Amino acid sequence: MSDMEKRLKKIEDRLALEDVLQNYYVAVDTMHDVEGIIDCFTEDGVFDLTGLGLSRLQGHDAIRAFFTGVFKDTAHHSHHVTNFRVKSVGEHDATARGYVIGKAEGKAGEQVLVYCYYNIEYRRTAQGWKMTLFDEGALIPFGDQIDDLHGDH
Amino acid sequence: MSDMEKRLKKIEDRLALEDVLQNYYVAVDTMHDVEGIIDCFTEDGVFDLTGLGLSRLQGHDAIRAFFTGVFKDTAHHSHHVTNFRVKSVGEHDATARGYVIGKAEGKAGEQVLVYCYYNIEYRRTAQGWKMTLFDEGALIPFGDQIDDLHGDH
Amino acid sequence: MSDMEKRLKKIEDRLALEDVLQNYYVAVDTMHDVEGIIDCFTEDGVFDLTGLGLSRLQGHDAIRAFFTGVFKDTAHHSHHVTNFRVKSVGEHDATARGYVIGKAEGKAGEQVLVYCYYNIEYRRTAQGWKMTLFDEGALIPFGDQIDDLHGDH
Repeated sequence: MSDMEKRLKKIEDRLALEDVLQNYYVAVDTMHDVEGIIDCFTEDGVFDLTGLGLSRLQGHDAIRAFFTGVFKDTAHHSHHVTNFRVKSVGEHDATARGYVIGKAEGKAGEQVLVYCYYNIEYRRTAQGWKMTLFDEGALIPFGDQIDDLHGDH
Repeated sequence: MSDMEKRLKKIEDRLALEDVLQNYYVAVDTMHDVEGIIDCFTEDGVFDLTGLGLSRLQGHDAIRAFFTGVFKDTAHHSHHVTNFRVKSVGEHDATARGYVIGKAEGKAGEQVLVYCYYNIEYRRTAQGWKMTLFDEGALIPFGDQIDDLHGDH
Repeated sequence: MSDMEKRLKKIEDRLALEDVLQNYYVAVDTMHDVEGIIDCFTEDGVFDLTGLGLSRLQGHDAIRAFFTGVFKDTAHHSHHVTNFRVKSVGEHDATARGYVIGKAEGKAGEQVLVYCYYNIEYRRTAQGWKMTLFDEGALIPFGDQIDDLHGDH
């Protein structure tokens, strides 16, 4: 690969890694597309919300069960992604970090507004980059408001 | 065009499409630059706020009249653009989608804070990409707060 | 440099200029990494918060003193960067503008939420792009809430 092509590929990877995150939140904000969420993770992918006082889940079945519960209790989602940056990218793996402002409204009218970070680990697969880890935590601590919408799933 | 140049052009288009949106909001947040807004639309461009319970406007004159009214009633704007992604891009047309957190303060002191999405359709012109459609709606429903600032124009 | 390489370099510069801003906020949000902040500025860099009713500081020592004070009084930071766009880029200098939603919580429990813009001037150095000016102001005016956390340093 020429030097120019290496430089081009580096930019393409950066944009593709952000696309995976954007696709994840597109699905999260549909309020129904569980399979769209699952498709962003490798089969052994980890979804870790211990930084929010919630669970650490591994694998498609566990993540699917979690979001099935979330979508049952929540009426509206709006996840505003900011500060995305790639920390490392290699032939097979990559890491990134970013922020999200998460606004949600429960079916019982609960209002949630949170300021969070996430650390992401990726693997390059035949179907493009997938997340092997999505690890989210609070930048500004919040009390138990999120439990009402996302807890006990 | 070489394969390398096609890949480069794809990235350039992606960035240029986001620039049009950013230029639109630069003008919207000046509180006066109606012509800067108009310049982001094709002559037959549609500005559709039916998703916000407001009007669907077509053409420069209608859009100009709307923003003239908005700027008359509104003291401050702050539109924070996130989650921008290109959905399709061809030789002559493109589509994109994204979010915006819109904060506004009316001249009478009204405070508005909304979480919205927009779908954009673009046409490539001799003056670069222009919007043929800007279609905005609420991610988190809001009541009639926006009517005070943007209604009846 | 070939035309293709010039076009590639333009994109690389754009991404690198945003990286400097992102690195700045990574440090600001650690609540301790004063040297990480300093590293984003040239030795003669200006940090101008007069648009927020605060000070205009010049040079590493003055900026270091400011953030040492901020970190002493503040428990949590969350700066959500949006609307970043490069306004000009040359061989040695560049300018950019963008927005930030700043959420902070003081050690005494104070809550701050602000909607701001920044104008940035950069210089290309042997260590990459550095900020010669970071000039921040309010998009939506706020009262004296920020004084509690960032004032009198």
